Formats: sequence, C-alpha cells, structure tokens
Amino acid sequence: MFKLIKTENNARRGEFYTNRGLVQTPAFMNVATAGAIKGGVSAKDLKDVGCQIMLSNTYHLHIRPGDEKVKECGGLHKFTTWDGPILTDSGGFQVFSLASLRNITEEGVIFASHIDGKRIFMGPEESMTIQSNLGSTIAMAFDECVENPAEYSYARESCMRTTRWLERCKAKMTELNLLETTVNREQMLFGINQGCTYNDLRIEHMKQIADLDLDGYAIGGLAVGEPTEVMYDVIEHVEPFMPNDKIRYLMGVGTPVNILNAVDRGVDLFDCVMPSRNARHGHLFTSRGIMNINNNKYDTDMAPIDDRCGCPACQRYSRAYIRHLLKAGEMLGARLLVLHNLWFYNNLMAAIRKALDEDCFYQFKRDQEQILGKRI
Amino acid sequence: MFKLIKTENNARRGEFYTNRGLVQTPAFMNVATAGAIKGGVSAKDLKDVGCQIMLSNTYHLHIRPGDEKVKECGGLHKFTTWDGPILTDSGGFQVFSLASLRNITEEGVIFASHIDGKRIFMGPEESMTIQSNLGSTIAMAFDECVENPAEYSYARESCMRTTRWLERCKAKMTELNLLETTVNREQMLFGINQGCTYNDLRIEHMKQIADLDLDGYAIGGLAVGEPTEVMYDVIEHVEPFMPNDKIRYLMGVGTPVNILNAVDRGVDLFDCVMPSRNARHGHLFTSRGIMNINNNKYDTDMAPIDDRCGCPACQRYSRAYIRHLLKAGEMLGARLLVLHNLWFYNNLMAAIRKALDEDCFYQFKRDQEQILGKRI
Repeated sequence: MFKLIKTENNARRGEFYTNRGLVQTPAFMNVATAGAIKGGVSAKDLKDVGCQIMLSNTYHLHIRPGDEKVKECGGLHKFTTWDGPILTDSGGFQVFSLASLRNITEEGVIFASHIDGKRIFMGPEESMTIQSNLGSTIAMAFDECVENPAEYSYARESCMRTTRWLERCKAKMTELNLLETTVNREQMLFGINQGCTYNDLRIEHMKQIADLDLDGYAIGGLAVGEPTEVMYDVIEHVEPFMPNDKIRYLMGVGTPVNILNAVDRGVDLFDCVMPSRNARHGHLFTSRGIMNINNNKYDTDMAPIDDRCGCPACQRYSRAYIRHLLKAGEMLGARLLVLHNLWFYNNLMAAIRKALDEDCFYQFKRDQEQILGKRI
Repeated sequence: MFKLIKTENNARRGEFYTNRGLVQTPAFMNVATAGAIKGGVSAKDLKDVGCQIMLSNTYHLHIRPGDEKVKECGGLHKFTTWDGPILTDSGGFQVFSLASLRNITEEGVIFASHIDGKRIFMGPEESMTIQSNLGSTIAMAFDECVENPAEYSYARESCMRTTRWLERCKAKMTELNLLETTVNREQMLFGINQGCTYNDLRIEHMKQIADLDLDGYAIGGLAVGEPTEVMYDVIEHVEPFMPNDKIRYLMGVGTPVNILNAVDRGVDLFDCVMPSRNARHGHLFTSRGIMNINNNKYDTDMAPIDDRCGCPACQRYSRAYIRHLLKAGEMLGARLLVLHNLWFYNNLMAAIRKALDEDCFYQFKRDQEQILGKRI
C-alpha cells in the first residue's frame, strides 16, 4: 500500500507499506543480482549503508541455484538473511539481454541459458511461479523488453502482448498466493509500462495496465541507450496516466542526476547497478563531485574518500590504502568502494526525502546537479 | 619481551610483550600479504575473528605500493588501521620463490620483480630499511631460503652467509631505531635458523644466532615440500638450542595437525596462508572435521557451516547460501569462508592455550588429531 504524504510540483514524498516493513520514498533499491551485492557486501552490510529495499534477479536465481532450491531453503529472505523488502524482477530483461536464441510466441519465450546453453521456456505463469518460489515481497510482471530504436508496428504489437501477459501474471499470482505452500502469500505484483520511445504507445499501454489495479507501476524499457532527454520526455508523457495512489518505479535508472530528474517528474522508486559497478572500477560519488581513486595524486593521501560521508569505508580507511588495495587486486578494495557508493546513493535518497519534507526539493536539486557534475 | 608462563613437557604457554600490546602464545599470525587478508577481510574483521597478530609481506609491499609510500602514510599500522602487533617477513622467501633471474653475492641478491621485471637489489641493510619504513612491530632477518633438497656443501656455505647477514641486519636495525624519523623506533628483530634438513647444520647455525641475543628466533626453510616427519625431526633437533626466554616462530606452518605437533615440540608462533587459501576453494575446517562446501549435499542445507563456531559467517549464514555464493563467483562467498577458517585457526590456538593452562594439552592434542583427520 502506498501513501502519498506530500508533493512539490510533480515530486512526491511517500511511504510504501509491505509485509516486510515500510519503505520511505523516494527510495533506491540496492541490487543483489544473485542474492548478494557484488563486491562481498552482505545483508548485514546493507543495513550499515542505509539500504531500505533489496532487488534480486529472477533469471539469475532461476538458473543458479534454482528457484525451487531457494523455496526449499525457505525463500530469499531466509536464504540471504536480508529481512527487509525484496523486489524480484521478472526475468524478462535478462532473457532479452543476456540469453541467446530467443523465440517469442504468445505463450512466452524459449531461450538458451547464458551459463550452459540449456533451453528454457519462460512465460507469464513461469515467471510468477519462479518469483513465488523465491518468495520476494514484490514480483514484477513478465514483459517483453523491446530494443530501442524499434519499428512502431512491432513496438505496438509487443505492447499489446505485454498487456495480455500482465493479465495472465495477475491471474497466476492470485492463484499462487492462495496456495498454503507458497513462501509469501502476500506477494505483491507491479505492472510494467512499455512502448519504446513512442509516447502515444506509452500512454495507451499505461491506461490499459492502470485498469488492472496492481500494487505498483513501473516504467520499463528506458535507460537502454536512448538519449537522456528522450527518457525524461517519456516519463513526462506517461506520468499523468500513472495512478496517483500507487508507487512508481523507474527501472534500471540511473545516475544521481537521472534520479533527481525522475523524482522531479513524479517517480518514487529506482534501481541501478551503477553504484556497485562504478565502485569496482574506482569511480566514486562524493559530496564534492566524482572521484577516480586510481589517480596517482591519492597515493599517500590519508584523508577518507569523503570527509562528509558516514559509510564504513570513510569512517576508517584512507584514500591511499583503498587505492593501494584496488591496484593490488585485493577484494577488500572493491568491497570498501562498493560500500561507499551504496551509502552515497542511499544517503542521496534520504537527502531528497528531507528536502521534500522541508519543501526545498528544487533548491536541493539545483545545488546537487552542480556538485554532481564536478570531477575532483 | 617473552615470558614463559608454564610448560607441559616441551609445549610452552607464554606471553609476548610488544609496544602494540600483548600476544598470548601459542599464537597464529593472520597473513595480510599486501596489507589486507585475501577475501575482502579488513582490519576490523580481524578483531572479529580473534586475530592477535597480523603478518605482512615485505617483498609485496616494497614493490607495491612501495615502502617509502607506506612510510609517508605513517607506517603499516596507520595505513591498514590494524592497531595490534604486525610482523613483516624479510622479503627473502619471496625473492627466492617468486622473483626470477636471481644473483646471490655476499652483499645480497639482485632479482627481477614478478610484477614488471624491474631489477631490484636487496641485502640485509635494504631489507631492514624497507621493514623500518613499513614500521612493523617485528622485523625478520634477511636470510637465504635454500631449496630442499640441497647439497650439504652449499647448505653450509649459505648458512654461514645467513649468519653474517644477520649480524649486518642487527647493526642496521640498531642504527635505524636511533633515527628520529623512524616510524617505530622500538622495532624488534627476529633471527632465522636455516640449514635445510641437515640437523648438524641446523644446530650449529642455531648456536651462532642465539649468541646475537635477538628478540625472537624463527625456524625457516621448512614446510617447503619435505616430508612432515622430516620437519618434526628438524624441530626436535634444533629446539634444545633455542633460547628458552625468547619466542620461537615456525615460519609458514601449517595444517592444524602440524601446529599441534610443533607446539608439542616447543614452538610458540605460526603463520600460514592455508586457512584463507583453502577457504577460497571451499575447503573448511570445522569442529567435526574437514568440510568441502562445494559438495552437492549442502545445496539446501540451512545449518551453519559449524554449529559450534562463533565466526561471523556461522553466526548468520547457511551452508546452502554460502555454497551458492561460491558457485556463483560472488565475492561474499570467499569473504565468509575466509572469516570462518581464520576464526577456526585463532580459536584452535585459544583452545591450545586453555589446554596448556589446564595441564591437559596431550589429551587435547590426541582428541584434535582424531577430529582433524575426519572428512565430513
């Protein structure tokens, strides 16, 4: 259940209630692809970096260790020991981006596993069953992610199919939540808006899925290579047709500036691998701008990465030491940097919420955009 | 300063005083080669797994980031944030095992870096200067590690040179500790006994170095491929000639059973990469025997690795989850397993000390040897 607390123009301050606790929005989901954050970050660490909600990938967990194995272990919460909300994606995005030899029919998709080439079928019912086995707090609808740019006629056909798939997802989820053996019988379902960069398709599709009265709505198929301005334009067009009383999730986005701009356009929820992926290459977000810890000038710099940061790395370790660890290929380097960047993202969201609470989001956004553009 | 508290036959219970605190012996040093334990384990984590003393490698730190850089950062303690005792090896073992194109003279060794092939000279004075720059609590003498088996004549010649090198080490360390710019002006120096597997050479060399009245004595050049019984035999022969009032360190040893047997023969201090290296491959030490977490039978096993273990992994995570992480190549898997094995080693040493305190070391050793031989 989503409660809209207040707005500043289109920007929304809200609370999202789940059977694993409350999520203060706007919020960023920390990505634990295979049930763990890359870089040796544990469920315990996630609490230390201010994570409210974790995201795991259905496709990866279906292939390894297998969703039925996770169910035998009591579901993802018991398996990973993360006790807060977990959102699982539908597997659709990975099927369309990672797997090979895809064949799409009305029923679903046949594809080859990127691990061992094994042929796998996934349709709406399969995706719901897998996510039910994983026992996540929120399941995502199984959709087709069409590559940009796409032909209008194909984009339209795909959108209509994604709506039909969503109806099947909802029916299957209702059925699964009634079973006594289901891990989380209150599993929520979010629908996903598609339509490539065609605003009329986006709007038509959004109207269709809004009618299904789901627990939340996502905008999918963006941040896949299109210009940033196109992404913002799609959000601006589709947002007026998203239910006001439901949480809104922009999938796979993005940079801190992207997030500020999407909040500005009425989005509540985000996820992205950028903080952890950038961290592992030494690219850091700080309160003074972007930092590349590989730079020689840090080789004897005993200051923390960011003296205004409250992350476990900045509380104890120096730029010089962390830079050395990264250069020497020591896992500890990656771990500390991932903790730092995740803390930055979670803290940015907390600062956005505070600015909304204090009716100064626009000033905050302008200031942050200036800082975030700097390289230090 | 070493204080012998009590003995049980040759086994010794002692306390080793350093300017970074007390080490209860017998003790195991946790190996942080490049200033961090492999597997993403931090100085903070080392406290959690019961580490008393950390070991870092002079050769690795000299090459990267460079000992002068570490000195600029205030020494290894400030650099790594580990505030307990640190022992640095001399670089000798790595020069003789990792580097290529070695040329040994009376002065020292010219070799090529294993990173970039750069030609480097290291002799007793260079090794002391580097370790002084690192500012470790304990420096090790620069010695030649002769490969086993070696010709008797070469082994003898090398031993005599190692004694001459040790005299130069002591002189240089005395000089460095007088300098105001030195990081740790109370740096201690341990001598290293060599002599391959020739007991008469071992004894002759031990007598020579005992005369130099150093802060501790190590047995080097063992655990390099010779049969275990030969290693035990060398210790038995050389031990009577090791000063009673100095700490005794068996370098690079070993398995838990090796450690029990070396304690039995009068050794106080150990180091080995085995707990962390084995952990990264899923080979674990437990209170019921050796476990391979890769085994299929653990795929839905929600028990901890060892229900009698107090490590951070066993306190929270299941066999099934950790096994999955290792299979999926998630760093968190390696991290949790390294924490487990280090805790096991540190806890084994604590149990050895308790057994010595309670005059039941021999019973403890017999029981442990039975358990440690089991595969579960």
